[in-house]
Parts: sequence; C-alpha cells; structure tokens
Amino acid sequence: MKEEIENKPVITKIPTIYGDLWFFGFKFEDEEIVAISNKRKIKNPINLRIHSCCFTSEIFGSLKCDCVQQLNQFMKLMGEDKKNNYLLIYFLNHEGRGIGLLNKLKVYEVQRKLKLDTYEANKYLGFDYDHRNFDKAIYILNYFKIEEITIFSNNPQKVKILKERGFNISIKKFLVRPPSTYALHYLMTKAERGGHFIKEEIRKLIEKNMK
Amino acid sequence: MKEEIENKPVITKIPTIYGDLWFFGFKFEDEEIVAISNKRKIKNPINLRIHSCCFTSEIFGSLKCDCVQQLNQFMKLMGEDKKNNYLLIYFLNHEGRGIGLLNKLKVYEVQRKLKLDTYEANKYLGFDYDHRNFDKAIYILNYFKIEEITIFSNNPQKVKILKERGFNISIKKFLVRPPSTYALHYLMTKAERGGHFIKEEIRKLIEKNMK
Repeated sequence: MKEEIENKPVITKIPTIYGDLWFFGFKFEDEEIVAISNKRKIKNPINLRIHSCCFTSEIFGSLKCDCVQQLNQFMKLMGEDKKNNYLLIYFLNHEGRGIGLLNKLKVYEVQRKLKLDTYEANKYLGFDYDHRNFDKAIYILNYFKIEEITIFSNNPQKVKILKERGFNISIKKFLVRPPSTYALHYLMTKAERGGHFIKEEIRKLIEKNMK
Repeated sequence: MKEEIENKPVITKIPTIYGDLWFFGFKFEDEEIVAISNKRKIKNPINLRIHSCCFTSEIFGSLKCDCVQQLNQFMKLMGEDKKNNYLLIYFLNHEGRGIGLLNKLKVYEVQRKLKLDTYEANKYLGFDYDHRNFDKAIYILNYFKIEEITIFSNNPQKVKILKERGFNISIKKFLVRPPSTYALHYLMTKAERGGHFIKEEIRKLIEKNMK
C-alpha cells in the first residue's frame, strides 16, 4: 500500500440522524473505504469500531444477524458523546466476511435448506470462514496517528491484529439487542466457534427467549 | 449482456423487518445486482422500484436526501401487501448517480463550501449529472418475463427508458416524508432541473416548512 501513503482522504461534513459527522473517504488501489468521526481532528485516545458492511441487514432489514444494530448503536454513541473521539472504519467490500453479497446469499440458502450454521454452510460451499483482511484499517489508523484505542468489538481476531501492530488496546464488549431468534443463534455460533466475547450474555438471552 | 442470459440468479428467502422476502442475486460481468420480492414467483402485473444505492443515507443516516425513505417505504409496502407482486431492483454500484462514493463526498464538500446545488456541484467537478445506466434492470425484467409495470418513481428518465423498451407502464408518484430541509431542497432541485414529477408537492412542503 506504499503509493497510497501519499493519498489524502476526501473529507466532508454531513448532517445525519446522529448529528453532524465528518466523513473521510480513502481510495485504495482495489477499493474505497470510509471512515466516519464526530470530530474533524482525529485524536488519541479513540473509541473505534472496525465494521464490515452487511447490506442484507443494514440496507434490506435482514433479521439474520445483529450487524445493523451494532453499527447504529456505535453511530448513536458517536453522535451523542460530544466529549470523546469516535472513529468508525467501514469496509464497503466485506460483505459476508469477504465472500461478497451473491456468495452470502448462496450461504444463506444452504443454511436454510440443509439447516447448517454459518460456519458449516461456508465450509459446505468451499469458503473459509473469514476472508477479510484488515490491513487497510491499520493504514487508516496510522494515517490519523492513532495509538490508544478502545475497540467496540466482540471479535478476538480484530483485537489480536491491533495488538500485534502495537496499538494500545482496551476492549469494550459490545452487546446490542439482537433483533431476532435467528440473530441470537448466529451470535451463539460466533461465540462458540469464533471465540467471540459475549457467550454468557448470549446464553442468557437464549434461555430467556425460550421461556 | 448476451452471456448473462444463461446465468440464473442465486435465490434465497430472508426474514426481514418487513417480513420474509425473496432475494435474487444476479451476477453480471462487472457488477452484482440484487432484486427483492415479496413473492417467489414473479408475475405480471408488478409494482416496481428501480433503486440506486445511496449508502450515505441508507447506511450512515445522511439527511441530505430522501433515498433511504423511498427505499424503506417501498420495502414496507412490499412486506405488508400480501396480494400484489412487488419487485425492487437494487443497483449496488450507483452511488452518487454512478460517480461512486468518494466522488459523491467530493460533490458534497463542493456543495458545502461553494453553496452549490447538486447539479452545479457535479458540473463544477466535471461530472455529468447522471452516469447511471439501467440496461441491467431491463435484463432482469426480461428474465422475469415482466410486461406490465407500475413504477414507483418520480424520475421521468426511468419511465422513458421503460416505455422505449416496450413495457406497459403506469406511474405511481412517490412522495415520502423528506427527512430534513436539506432533503427538501435537494428534491426541489431534482424537480426543477431534472423534471421530477413532484414539484408542486415539494413546493408546498417547503412553504409549510418556512412558516
């Protein structure tokens, strides 16, 4: 990503339902990535979310996951908390953990027909569980000279990557209200198979739901 | 698009906040397009919306336009009306009327700094007002053997294209509640400069807003 070091982001302020937010558009050779903040000047320490797009829930209202709830919750915090610095790094090309929207629809259909969980269905179709690469988030964090991060995430992989790159990391476990039983079971799968941090919280919600 | 005639869409059913909906993912050489319906079997006559993605409003809550309201309103109708057939054709690569997200952010910044409207700002940056091409919507309509359409749109260009291709078209003017003064003025610009159908309705809303 050498050549992009020269590239400065496109910057503008947009009025949103969460308040006025600053948009930073980064152009990489193979994709565009948007970073959004409540502040024009991005400073340490920062509350960070690295978010992979999920058009099925964020645009089309799918109940199969909790992605849109996580995104909206973080943006709400960002808009409300005038004191602290927030940064959302939004990957526009990470649909279905990087396999793309059409492949994600294939995975959903396999899940539906064969009653598989998300890991099993990906495997059934020959996909790895996670095809994402977060290097460009590191680039963007470096661009903003970020060192101290509170990351809003339940994903141990993201924490590991940031720690390995030398960032000073605190973790904010991030349980939003799951929108459906589908999403609850999806979260439990991620907790059991992917080591996500909120297993106990999810277990309690599932128990409550079954009563 | 000859070769794609052979391609069948990926099909699955997804539970959404609007009810269970059928997703049809079409793969073209240069892009993926999603069609969504309340029915598995797409039949004539059809209530149609051809929608260009607007991630700024649909994902990030921008108040500068009414795209997300139009999309949500159409999907709500689709979910509620069990009797009639609805089809949403969603172009994932049409951000900013086809110029892409980063260029759209540039246009917004020019609008903000120079107090230009959307047409003037696009021109200022050397973009045509509209870079979109709807040929793939025609392909999808033909794939589903659609002939009779009620189109939910205020855009005379979309109506013209469908009429020229021989579809039997009725128009459903589509005024959703604009989310902000920004959006109202954006709508008025589209009405005045692009001939959109709802000029009088918008004028009344602006007058009401100014009282």
